[in-house]
Amino acid sequence: MNADKQIKVGIVGGTGYTGVELLRMLTLHPHAKVTMITSRKEAGTRLDAMFPSLRGRCDLVFSDTATADLTHCDVVFYATPHGVAMADASKMVAAGVKIIDLAADFRFKDLAVFEQWYKMPHSCPELAAEAAYGLVELNRDAIKKARIIGNPGCYPTTMQLGFHPLLKAGIVDASNLIAACASGVSGAGKKADMDLIFSEASDNFKAYGVSGHRHHPETEARLQTMTADRVRLLFTPHLVPMIRGMHSTLYSRLNAKGLALSNEQLQALFVDAYNGEAFVDVMPFGSMPDTRSTRGSNTLRLALHRPQNGDTLVVLVVQDNLVKGAAGQAVQCMNLMFGVPETAGLLTLPLSP
Amino acid sequence: MNADKQIKVGIVGGTGYTGVELLRMLTLHPHAKVTMITSRKEAGTRLDAMFPSLRGRCDLVFSDTATADLTHCDVVFYATPHGVAMADASKMVAAGVKIIDLAADFRFKDLAVFEQWYKMPHSCPELAAEAAYGLVELNRDAIKKARIIGNPGCYPTTMQLGFHPLLKAGIVDASNLIAACASGVSGAGKKADMDLIFSEASDNFKAYGVSGHRHHPETEARLQTMTADRVRLLFTPHLVPMIRGMHSTLYSRLNAKGLALSNEQLQALFVDAYNGEAFVDVMPFGSMPDTRSTRGSNTLRLALHRPQNGDTLVVLVVQDNLVKGAAGQAVQCMNLMFGVPETAGLLTLPLSP
Amino acid sequence: MNADKQIKVGIVGGTGYTGVELLRMLTLHPHAKVTMITSRKEAGTRLDAMFPSLRGRCDLVFSDTATADLTHCDVVFYATPHGVAMADASKMVAAGVKIIDLAADFRFKDLAVFEQWYKMPHSCPELAAEAAYGLVELNRDAIKKARIIGNPGCYPTTMQLGFHPLLKAGIVDASNLIAACASGVSGAGKKADMDLIFSEASDNFKAYGVSGHRHHPETEARLQTMTADRVRLLFTPHLVPMIRGMHSTLYSRLNAKGLALSNEQLQALFVDAYNGEAFVDVMPFGSMPDTRSTRGSNTLRLALHRPQNGDTLVVLVVQDNLVKGAAGQAVQCMNLMFGVPETAGLLTLPLSP
Amino acid sequence: MNADKQIKVGIVGGTGYTGVELLRMLTLHPHAKVTMITSRKEAGTRLDAMFPSLRGRCDLVFSDTATADLTHCDVVFYATPHGVAMADASKMVAAGVKIIDLAADFRFKDLAVFEQWYKMPHSCPELAAEAAYGLVELNRDAIKKARIIGNPGCYPTTMQLGFHPLLKAGIVDASNLIAACASGVSGAGKKADMDLIFSEASDNFKAYGVSGHRHHPETEARLQTMTADRVRLLFTPHLVPMIRGMHSTLYSRLNAKGLALSNEQLQALFVDAYNGEAFVDVMPFGSMPDTRSTRGSNTLRLALHRPQNGDTLVVLVVQDNLVKGAAGQAVQCMNLMFGVPETAGLLTLPLSP
Repeated sequence: MNADKQIKVGIVGGTGYTGVELLRMLTLHPHAKVTMITSRKEAGTRLDAMFPSLRGRCDLVFSDTATADLTHCDVVFYATPHGVAMADASKMVAAGVKIIDLAADFRFKDLAVFEQWYKMPHSCPELAAEAAYGLVELNRDAIKKARIIGNPGCYPTTMQLGFHPLLKAGIVDASNLIAACASGVSGAGKKADMDLIFSEASDNFKAYGVSGHRHHPETEARLQTMTADRVRLLFTPHLVPMIRGMHSTLYSRLNAKGLALSNEQLQALFVDAYNGEAFVDVMPFGSMPDTRSTRGSNTLRLALHRPQNGDTLVVLVVQDNLVKGAAGQAVQCMNLMFGVPETAGLLTLPLSP
Repeated sequence: MNADKQIKVGIVGGTGYTGVELLRMLTLHPHAKVTMITSRKEAGTRLDAMFPSLRGRCDLVFSDTATADLTHCDVVFYATPHGVAMADASKMVAAGVKIIDLAADFRFKDLAVFEQWYKMPHSCPELAAEAAYGLVELNRDAIKKARIIGNPGCYPTTMQLGFHPLLKAGIVDASNLIAACASGVSGAGKKADMDLIFSEASDNFKAYGVSGHRHHPETEARLQTMTADRVRLLFTPHLVPMIRGMHSTLYSRLNAKGLALSNEQLQALFVDAYNGEAFVDVMPFGSMPDTRSTRGSNTLRLALHRPQNGDTLVVLVVQDNLVKGAAGQAVQCMNLMFGVPETAGLLTLPLSP
Repeated sequence: MNADKQIKVGIVGGTGYTGVELLRMLTLHPHAKVTMITSRKEAGTRLDAMFPSLRGRCDLVFSDTATADLTHCDVVFYATPHGVAMADASKMVAAGVKIIDLAADFRFKDLAVFEQWYKMPHSCPELAAEAAYGLVELNRDAIKKARIIGNPGCYPTTMQLGFHPLLKAGIVDASNLIAACASGVSGAGKKADMDLIFSEASDNFKAYGVSGHRHHPETEARLQTMTADRVRLLFTPHLVPMIRGMHSTLYSRLNAKGLALSNEQLQALFVDAYNGEAFVDVMPFGSMPDTRSTRGSNTLRLALHRPQNGDTLVVLVVQDNLVKGAAGQAVQCMNLMFGVPETAGLLTLPLSP
Repeated sequence: MNADKQIKVGIVGGTGYTGVELLRMLTLHPHAKVTMITSRKEAGTRLDAMFPSLRGRCDLVFSDTATADLTHCDVVFYATPHGVAMADASKMVAAGVKIIDLAADFRFKDLAVFEQWYKMPHSCPELAAEAAYGLVELNRDAIKKARIIGNPGCYPTTMQLGFHPLLKAGIVDASNLIAACASGVSGAGKKADMDLIFSEASDNFKAYGVSGHRHHPETEARLQTMTADRVRLLFTPHLVPMIRGMHSTLYSRLNAKGLALSNEQLQALFVDAYNGEAFVDVMPFGSMPDTRSTRGSNTLRLALHRPQNGDTLVVLVVQDNLVKGAAGQAVQCMNLMFGVPETAGLLTLPLSP
């Protein structure tokens, strides 16, 4: 792509948190410009009337999702509920528009699993088959060439980047992976649910989705691509009284091959795996990353522990669920798809404190 | 009332925060017992299914508001939206049941003001006329004899107890009262509003209702009863990212009579005004009460300041908005109405931290 | 003990959070009265000057720890750093005073483990040998007869009550227990540490003590008493931006004997184990307890899950870390030691919201 | 300044929150580069070891404040306690280095006031006399030419920008200004104070400094420069359980000249006053700005209210206390001093949610 050209970006469903995050990043993007943003309910409303944080920085008005023509865009982000992107996909692809779906429509290769967990038939299996899974560090080449991206779920990003070096090296028991994860409340989206109101969610901690969460089959399917052994994952999400941030505590048991490695060798395995990655920070062995060190940024940090030098390896992973876990990752995909620097628009530093 | 007799209590609309607060206090009350609690939507549901905090302590099941017969109760608390209590009141009073309304139906003597601010006609003006305003420290005798209580709003409680000694003594300019107040989010009730979800309300502070809040006419009317001078109050509520707690910063200008008083005399005025009150704590001059010192308790604390020894007196007032600002005050009224100790059921200490 | 007699209580080290919690509970206790409370640094200070939540409810003044004579007390609670109680113990026991230590001095039978983790020699091994571990539900008989109680740590309480029915029944692999736990910030005590200030701890989540936490050896030792199999526990604490509350997510793998049980049988095992316990709430299978349902109360709640009906059983446990995890448990012990009702002073309901 | 040249920046005292904020902004600044940062206590420590949020983005190591030579810098920011900048100033100015002091050393023209409130003699009165007060919107020309900047306090910034159009137009009673303000906890700095720990500051609200706060004389002195009438300001700061954010509710009484104006004219007064300002957002009349709409950005927002169309005008002002209230304002000054675009490095959008 010509360096002077601007990527014309459309956003469908811009009234949620991933929508406003996309705007925050794309407003400062040197090679992209949001030209249209749509909403079913807010057509005609200025964006900065809904998001005062955009006042003075964004003149856009919501177009009507039903009638907006996005085919003039180079790429469209779908920050919508599951099912919306796949309904549009054929038309958009035919018009030469690339698609980055932040929902689940294009995350699965086995569509039976998608249909079981998302309770809807898949409307374009061929496009699902060609779509690239948008976890850049593990799928960069496919993303560069893709017309359609299924942007990963937030929890799955942490679990895949945390377990990948271990599974690829074949040094842990793939059938006994445990992930105790915790998310800030924004992970539930901008929804007026009783469980999410301040008086309920504040000064509180609880598990949820223990018996089944949609990010479980997504993650298990992706982990299975990393090893010939059968993968079994136990995933327990928890809700934390914070706005942003995601923390995953990953447990895996070293097998004979793994037990032969020193802690230094285990650390080196991760350092090598993410060498040169702009957005993965392998911290020193024994570090304890905190979520706030990633607040507002596209960086994911991880650190290894081996308690009592036993046979269980603990990987701690943190990210901002709305950035590396959603909108930032999507922009990172866009950058690759259009041949601009992978870090463009993503270099804002974390907000600390 | 016979010391051994238990007050039979009914609660209408027990699914909100004031409902569960009433249960928290009445479960431990030595002279009262909740015999029936109703809900429009949750009839048949066990209370502890909705409020796990009650598990093991409460066997009640919600009765249907539409069909429940509460006339066997000695007293019924209405923890309902505005308008519900007045629709029931005639029937209940006729059956000899006392009423404590935590909504606004019985707070106003001038029903035109009620109708203007609550956008509904008042259905029983005679009962409104006889109802007692339930601010115990300022209206104890009337409450003791009342059949109907209009329980005060949360903000009005702090403003009245803070301004009363000054207005009664005639030492401030009644036409220039300012109240900058702040409330925890529970003050908005258990409602799934977008503005109240954690991701919106947390790490944030804002004013609301600046141009008009229903507690303004209520307070102004009550303050007017304390002085022959014309009262003018400016009231600015703010929303604080905390669950419980209310803080009012009250400004009034000393008039010539007031300027003749020393700070010690001003302090003595308040100490004398609330001498013997179990639930009003006049702190030393210059103290800075924090809301958490009242968390979960029926105590209201206040302290005087006179910055730069100028002509403006500042009164800081704190309370738990759900207790002294709502359910605790209501129980205090009930105690008076039935001749049991005023503090019965209300002696739980604040939760600190 | 005569029903009319009051237990005379002393508290050493009353300036921390467990100290003020003891006061909150004992002030309302029908059979006990705090007669003396000491502090090294605050001798002469009124308690309510330090804790405004006690204003109007407590006239006590801190005595000097160095000179105070507590031998007139029936029982002394040590809410002190590790090492203080054991220095006093011989003298107190000789004077017929019972001791409840909220620190670690009397939690260990293997004093080498104590000395390794707490970096101090144990000064009274004989008393450590006779001391009872104060986890009431698992050690009630010993506590009733004890002169000295080692009150359990907060995390260990959740882990022991969660794992005990499984280990006792011998249905899980004792060598592969994992506990991913989370605590509110008050668990760190009232300390002016940089990591604990609001700007650092709020809107944040992180693990800590991953490679070694003092509650690990305490718990592992106690779990070992429940089974002949070798116990191996992996324990990962996390810090949650909430004041109070503790949540433990416990993973254990069912062995052949366990896999033969239905979920109903597993549930029944827990229901039976805690049948009649006033402070343990076994919730329905598949429940997700939240910490706030225990806020301010002595109740611990737990619930079982078996994700994907696989071989891993998940037990979720919540409590208030300052109550059942500390001061409430200590009062429960005291009640047993003096023959008053076990629930005396402990029936305050949780604060919700 | 040549567009290609980079401003060489030094920072003294970089371990606090304003230090890390300066780094966050200057790392992305197109025309500036931090070349040295000093600390008394952390000499030799990498910055990213103290602030993990900087990992991968900053290779700097703290130099020793005592020995570091900052005379090679073009400008030095002092993010230090009061008194440090003035001790260095003569030497730096002599070496041609510009100074931006984020503490109070150069905020006052009347040094007797400085000395009274900051309890130290002023060591360089001549430089204090020439220093420019760094509130850009009200003092742009002086800042452009200045060698030394006294960067305003956070509260004073909101009060000055909120009252300025009113005082300049002479339409309010200058002798009766009231400011009820609220700040997030980061305003107290990175200090391990007991009052600031999460368990104390969370779920709480209180006033502080009611009888005297250092920002009071600073603000009153600056307001006095805007009018010939005598200014009297009452200032009440409050502490809010949020990390960042500042909210000021400003009350002033319209005089005869003011009462002659319509609300539209009052609004126009503010719109005109800040027309063209990149960082002041005058919201529509009657808006209620929230602090989070400014989180992480250099924008200050304000809105007018006139409750009950009475004679009191209320101005609501919000900003991020660490950005427009401190480090962002300082960078804005630097940009002016060096002739680069005023918005350079300051265009990051607010983090929402």
